[in-house]
Amino acid sequence: MNPTYKKLLARWKDISALASASGLCGWDQETMLPPRGIEARSEQESALSGVIHEKVIDPELGKMLRDLTEHPAGLTADQRACVREWVRDYEHSVKLPPELVREMARVTSLSQAAWIKARKASDFKAFAPWLEKVIALKRREADALGYKGERYDALLDTYEPEMTVAQLDPIVQQVREGLVPIVHAISRSKAKISDELLRRRYPEADQEALCKEIMTIVGLDTEAARLDRSAHPFCCGIAPTDVRITTRYDEHWLPGSLYGVIHESGHALYEQGLPAKHYGTPLAEAVSLGIHESQSRFWENVIGRSRPFVRFIFPRLKKRFPLALGRADAEAFYRSINHVMPSAIRVEADEVTYNMHVVLRYELEKGLMAGRIKVRELPALWNERMKEYLGVTPKNDAEGVLQDTHWPQGLVGYFPTYLLGNLNAAQLWNALKKDVRGAEAQVAKGELSQILGWLRKNVHCHGRRYGPAELIERATGEKPTPRYFLEYLKEKYGEIYQIDQF
Amino acid sequence: MNPTYKKLLARWKDISALASASGLCGWDQETMLPPRGIEARSEQESALSGVIHEKVIDPELGKMLRDLTEHPAGLTADQRACVREWVRDYEHSVKLPPELVREMARVTSLSQAAWIKARKASDFKAFAPWLEKVIALKRREADALGYKGERYDALLDTYEPEMTVAQLDPIVQQVREGLVPIVHAISRSKAKISDELLRRRYPEADQEALCKEIMTIVGLDTEAARLDRSAHPFCCGIAPTDVRITTRYDEHWLPGSLYGVIHESGHALYEQGLPAKHYGTPLAEAVSLGIHESQSRFWENVIGRSRPFVRFIFPRLKKRFPLALGRADAEAFYRSINHVMPSAIRVEADEVTYNMHVVLRYELEKGLMAGRIKVRELPALWNERMKEYLGVTPKNDAEGVLQDTHWPQGLVGYFPTYLLGNLNAAQLWNALKKDVRGAEAQVAKGELSQILGWLRKNVHCHGRRYGPAELIERATGEKPTPRYFLEYLKEKYGEIYQIDQF
Repeated sequence: MNPTYKKLLARWKDISALASASGLCGWDQETMLPPRGIEARSEQESALSGVIHEKVIDPELGKMLRDLTEHPAGLTADQRACVREWVRDYEHSVKLPPELVREMARVTSLSQAAWIKARKASDFKAFAPWLEKVIALKRREADALGYKGERYDALLDTYEPEMTVAQLDPIVQQVREGLVPIVHAISRSKAKISDELLRRRYPEADQEALCKEIMTIVGLDTEAARLDRSAHPFCCGIAPTDVRITTRYDEHWLPGSLYGVIHESGHALYEQGLPAKHYGTPLAEAVSLGIHESQSRFWENVIGRSRPFVRFIFPRLKKRFPLALGRADAEAFYRSINHVMPSAIRVEADEVTYNMHVVLRYELEKGLMAGRIKVRELPALWNERMKEYLGVTPKNDAEGVLQDTHWPQGLVGYFPTYLLGNLNAAQLWNALKKDVRGAEAQVAKGELSQILGWLRKNVHCHGRRYGPAELIERATGEKPTPRYFLEYLKEKYGEIYQIDQF
Repeated sequence: MNPTYKKLLARWKDISALASASGLCGWDQETMLPPRGIEARSEQESALSGVIHEKVIDPELGKMLRDLTEHPAGLTADQRACVREWVRDYEHSVKLPPELVREMARVTSLSQAAWIKARKASDFKAFAPWLEKVIALKRREADALGYKGERYDALLDTYEPEMTVAQLDPIVQQVREGLVPIVHAISRSKAKISDELLRRRYPEADQEALCKEIMTIVGLDTEAARLDRSAHPFCCGIAPTDVRITTRYDEHWLPGSLYGVIHESGHALYEQGLPAKHYGTPLAEAVSLGIHESQSRFWENVIGRSRPFVRFIFPRLKKRFPLALGRADAEAFYRSINHVMPSAIRVEADEVTYNMHVVLRYELEKGLMAGRIKVRELPALWNERMKEYLGVTPKNDAEGVLQDTHWPQGLVGYFPTYLLGNLNAAQLWNALKKDVRGAEAQVAKGELSQILGWLRKNVHCHGRRYGPAELIERATGEKPTPRYFLEYLKEKYGEIYQIDQF
């Protein structure tokens, strides 16, 4: 092994191990931490990020990276990919002035606290000064990181490497233009679909047992995973051999845990599928949020909300919940979980309307970054577009512009990855069905190993070897496109809502 | 604040926060870690200890410490105590060659694996070469750390600051000479005491609920604590506001969880009683293992196994376990939990015989370090002394010299702190009873707050402000002495076993 590469590898393995420890601190905070421990925890996390940052920006590291970039002869293709991604991480870190990083941490911590209060009181004015501070800092951050096209590109690239507004705008436009008629057609449909079935009583302990069963059914290695409870569901990949998901239980809303756990299991399958032998290098790291979300949405929606999967799972549900489901059939359950209902709240949105929530947020945050939109204009713009896209008017700002935790946390450029995840999931499924014969029939029998195997081989095992767009193109033979997602929706919901033509 | 002191404080707070994160990794490993995550965890822990070590041995830190040690003017008494303890930690770290630390980590990890196999097969010969390696490394470690009297002093000092063989030998001799006649008198006693009551069926879920109740009864702040399960019970103080204990449940051995949790709660009360405002400095750190163990043994034995406490707790036990305890009374329960029975196994030993197990180990490991005893002689020496001290002959080496995890782990000099803990607990109780009027009557009513308050004020709140011996002297008005422990045993067990004269 090239001696410089060997040194670099050891350093980044250390950094990666420290980042894993920091991940554990975060997981513990949401699941296990005694309430009074929060202050000490924030000191632990801040000490850890300080150490990690110091190690990443070490000029000696930068020198070694330059050496290898200029003299890559003798490096394998995998090693070159690692160097390329290390350079990306190194440059990202050195470009951000430490003073800005500290200020961002301080302001977003305070702005989150202000947001919690403001949302409770549905008082946008109380939160607006904080959002202004956050946006100003994000503009500084983008300028420090640099960009070729729009300022927003710099932030987008943080979550979705290489993605730009120039690429994303046409995609978003296609999605918006494709979705609006679908939403309208469904709202005019006479088909009677309701989610009443899912609101009956589902005892918590049985939901939990079901969730554990589901983890096994989708193919998670339970010797390398955990399921716990938290206020907001998430997946935390500490290592490919240590992946933890969480959920919450509502006795009168079965999909909260059931589809929540399938979603998080999708993330967890990706994390478990990263090659453990490369743990500590970019080859064992997720490439982007848009790819991560493609895996969760694939399992949650494409598989989990499909008719074959429901046919397979329904007899098990009936056995666990005889009181709630005793007289229902699989078809009724299938329709319930695919009930489309435009609403004001993103996290409660169905598969069809979900992306319109994302489109709205993307347009607004892009405008904020470009200076075309002022913070004070947000509530009115938000409500106008909600009306235009989904025919819904939020009751108040708590249900409108104040609903999400992303902006208060300084996560700008994050929302579009939800949309990309949905598009990628449909495009992957389309390609997978060509390679895996009788995929749907396998799903109907609960045989998911070939499907998982395809994802392992075409997505998971690469880590950050290829950028997200190249990864999709290699897996599907086509550049990323919204086409398959829109086709998927039309076919599925045309049948459910008895719509011949959109 | 002195500017050098301010800088030092910030650095050590960072180090302490990283050590807390490492503590969390350790806790998680024993309680939550998915089985396959162990390898990645060991990389995380090793990266963290590497970073901590680097920060502690930083020469700049050493320079600042020397400055303040030479020019302490302007420092408060607390700040001087911190500097003194930081110097202790710094010197301990710089004296150990990194190569030795790494070799110790490597050898003890392998020797633990070898020990697990050897114990299973009761094959001392298979473990002996590993123990020889460990002992050789411990001798090197002691030489690197330095000592005035015996080589063993250097190791003892790691766990019990300032303690030496010269001080410990007379204490151990007094304990041994005091205990042997007590053990003999009890074994000749005609009193019929048995632990059959404790071996009935105690359902696990009820044991767990009882343990949580006990944590509240002894005064733990449950907003700053957790109870979980692990193979071996322990207490992990991540911060004074985040203290975690574990236990295990055996449906046919109630004291395993009940007295295990009281014991760990004693440790946890100490950790919670460390002053949170000083978190990150030696003033919020436990001073020694002998003091830590005094707190666990105080609550487990002095309080928990006392007649007043049993009278208070027994009605609650009866309510939880009506099938097992329906016809028993508090007095029968009191006698059961104070059943004395010499046995080969330390962790199962009662309050009376326990210290003889410790004496035996202390004598052997001291001999090993001094070179007076060879590893190959251990099994025979072990069995001889077991016979002499407790009248017991181990069935095999698995029940004899191979029973403890300490030597395979490289923990030499650790055992005596168990004994010191027992002595300290009795001496503290004796002093406490003079200050807290009607302490026993309070225990009988389950009112433990004044007792905890006394420990908070006299022990917990000081952290490492005073050395362990000074702490005991300040708390009790007397230098540490085995006298109160021996008196306590004679009074308690004389009554139970109807012995007039020892």
